[in-house]
Amino acid sequence: MELLLGVDIGGTNVKAGLVSGDGTVVASSMRGWSGGEPDEAVSLAARLAGELTGAHPEAAPTRCGTGCAGLVDGHRGTVLRSPNLPTWHDVELKAMLSAALGLRTLVDNDANAAAYAEYVLGAARGARSAVVITLGTGVGGGIVIDGRVYRGAHGFAGEIGHAVIDIDGAACACGGSGCLEGLVNARSLVARANEAIEEGARTSLADVARERTLTAKDVGDAAGRGDAVAGKVVAETGRVLGAGLANLIQVLDPDVIVVGGGVAAVGEPLLAPAREEMAARACGRGPNLPRVTFAELGELAGMVGAALLARDELDAA
Amino acid sequence: MELLLGVDIGGTNVKAGLVSGDGTVVASSMRGWSGGEPDEAVSLAARLAGELTGAHPEAAPTRCGTGCAGLVDGHRGTVLRSPNLPTWHDVELKAMLSAALGLRTLVDNDANAAAYAEYVLGAARGARSAVVITLGTGVGGGIVIDGRVYRGAHGFAGEIGHAVIDIDGAACACGGSGCLEGLVNARSLVARANEAIEEGARTSLADVARERTLTAKDVGDAAGRGDAVAGKVVAETGRVLGAGLANLIQVLDPDVIVVGGGVAAVGEPLLAPAREEMAARACGRGPNLPRVTFAELGELAGMVGAALLARDELDAA
Repeated sequence: MELLLGVDIGGTNVKAGLVSGDGTVVASSMRGWSGGEPDEAVSLAARLAGELTGAHPEAAPTRCGTGCAGLVDGHRGTVLRSPNLPTWHDVELKAMLSAALGLRTLVDNDANAAAYAEYVLGAARGARSAVVITLGTGVGGGIVIDGRVYRGAHGFAGEIGHAVIDIDGAACACGGSGCLEGLVNARSLVARANEAIEEGARTSLADVARERTLTAKDVGDAAGRGDAVAGKVVAETGRVLGAGLANLIQVLDPDVIVVGGGVAAVGEPLLAPAREEMAARACGRGPNLPRVTFAELGELAGMVGAALLARDELDAA
Repeated sequence: MELLLGVDIGGTNVKAGLVSGDGTVVASSMRGWSGGEPDEAVSLAARLAGELTGAHPEAAPTRCGTGCAGLVDGHRGTVLRSPNLPTWHDVELKAMLSAALGLRTLVDNDANAAAYAEYVLGAARGARSAVVITLGTGVGGGIVIDGRVYRGAHGFAGEIGHAVIDIDGAACACGGSGCLEGLVNARSLVARANEAIEEGARTSLADVARERTLTAKDVGDAAGRGDAVAGKVVAETGRVLGAGLANLIQVLDPDVIVVGGGVAAVGEPLLAPAREEMAARACGRGPNLPRVTFAELGELAGMVGAALLARDELDAA
C-alpha cells in the first residue's frame, strides 16, 4: 500500500509520520523546537522524514501533506504570517518542502488538516458538512463540505477564531478586536479563574495559584472535581463558545461541529453550556441544529489529515 | 424560449413575473398585502400568475421559483417561521404553491434567491464564491459557491443578519441578542440619528424629525448633502457592517461581497467605512480581500433569482 508523509509544523514542535493510504499511522516522530526560521523547520521535517523512511525501508512515501500553524494560503501552499512563528512572512513553504523532501507536497493550515482527518476518520465521518474548531493557545478552524476542505477565494477560509463576537471587545493578537479566540482560548479560561480568585471566591484553584501559574487543565480538572467556581468559569467560557457556534450555524448550517484541542479536554462542562447557548441563539431552528461533539483523533490529527489531503488532492506518482 | 414564473413573497407585498430563460423579465406584477395567512399569499401569487399568463398567451411558464421572507428550508421548500409573516409556522409552501399553480415549484429564502440573481446576472457575476447581504428592515444573506446556492445541512445557511457580533448586546427579534441585523438595519440607522438629535447635535435631520418620523433614506440623503452628523451616523453603521463583513471573510473568504437593500442606497458613505473596518479586522490578509460592492439588480432580484433557481435546480418539463 502507498505510504504518505504527513508533517505538522507548530509553534512548539514539528511532527512527521508515515501514514498509510487508509490513514493508519505506521510510524511517527516529534521534535520540540522554538518556532525559528522557515529553513530550520524544513530541515527538521526533512531530518524526521529521513529517519522514518530509514527505519521503514520496505516502502517510501510518494507524496507529502503538511499542516502549518498560521494564516496559510492552502491553494498556493504559502504561509502569509503565523502568530506562533513570528519571523514567518510570505513563506513559500510548499516549494521549500518539496525541494527538501524530493516529494510532491501540499501545504495547508494545520486546522484545515485536522478538520479533514476528523471528517474522513474521526468525529465528523459520515457527515456531509462539518466545522472543526481547535481550542488551544489559539483557536483554529477548518470547514469540510461535500468531502473537500473549503478554502475560499484566497485560501484563508475557516479562521473561526478570528470572527468578531464582541465588537467593542479587547484587542486580539491578529490586529482585530473582540475575536472569538481571545474569549475562549486557554489563556481566557485561566484569566477568568484568576479574576474569581482575586475577587476572593472560595475555590481550590486559589491554593494552586499560590504555588504556581494556573493552567487551563487546572481549571478543567477542578471543575470536574465539582469546584463550583471553576465550574462557573468553564460554563462562562462554554457560553461564549456557544455564541461562536451559533454564528457558524447562522452562516454555514453544518451537519456537525467538532470541538478539539487542549481546552476541549475540559469536556461536557464546557460543551453542555455551549450547546445551550447555541440553541438559544438559533432563531427558531428548533431541532434543526448540528450535532456538537468532541474531536476523536487527538494530537496527530493535523499530521494525519495533511497526509490524507495529499492522498486526495495531489496526483498520484 | 422557455418561460419561468418567479414569485417573491414578503411582509408587505407579493411579486410575480414571467422570466425568460436568460433572466429577462418579460412581465411582472406586484400587489401590496399585509402579511396574512399562507393561503392568502398562495391565492395572491396564483391570481398574479393567471393575470400575467392571460396577458401573454404566446408561452406558458413550465416551472416556478419562489423566494419567501423568513427562515426557509430551501431543501424541502418549507417556511419554519418568518418575523414579517407572523402567523406562518412550518408552512409547506412548496406543496401549496405547486398545487395552486399546477407547476413544479421550488421555494427558497428570498435573500438566497436575490443572491443567486446577483451571482448569475448582477454584481457577483464571474465570481466563484459570493455572499450577498440585503440591508433593509431585516438583514438577509445568501451564499453562492461554485455556481450553487449554499444552503447547509438543514437548508438555513446564509442567515448573516443573525450572526452575533455583540455578545452582550440588545435582544433581537430572532430570540438571540447582539445580532448584526439589529445594529445595521434601517431602524438602527434611524435610532443613531435620533440619539444624536436628542443629544443636541446640530443637524438638518432635527428639522425633519420635528415634522415626522425619520427614515433611513432621510439619514442617507442628509449624509449625501454633507450633513456632518448624518455622515457620522452612516459611518458608524458602516463600521459595524464592516465587522460583520470581516466575519464573512474569516469564515468563508469569498471572492465578492455584494451589499443590497434599502439601507445600501446610502451608498459609498456607508460602504467605504465598512471596507476599512473589514480590512482592519482581516488579520494580516493584506490585499487578499473580497471585492465589496453594491447590488445591481434592484427590487426584482428575489423574483428573478427564484426563477433562475427553478431553471437550474428543477428538472425541465
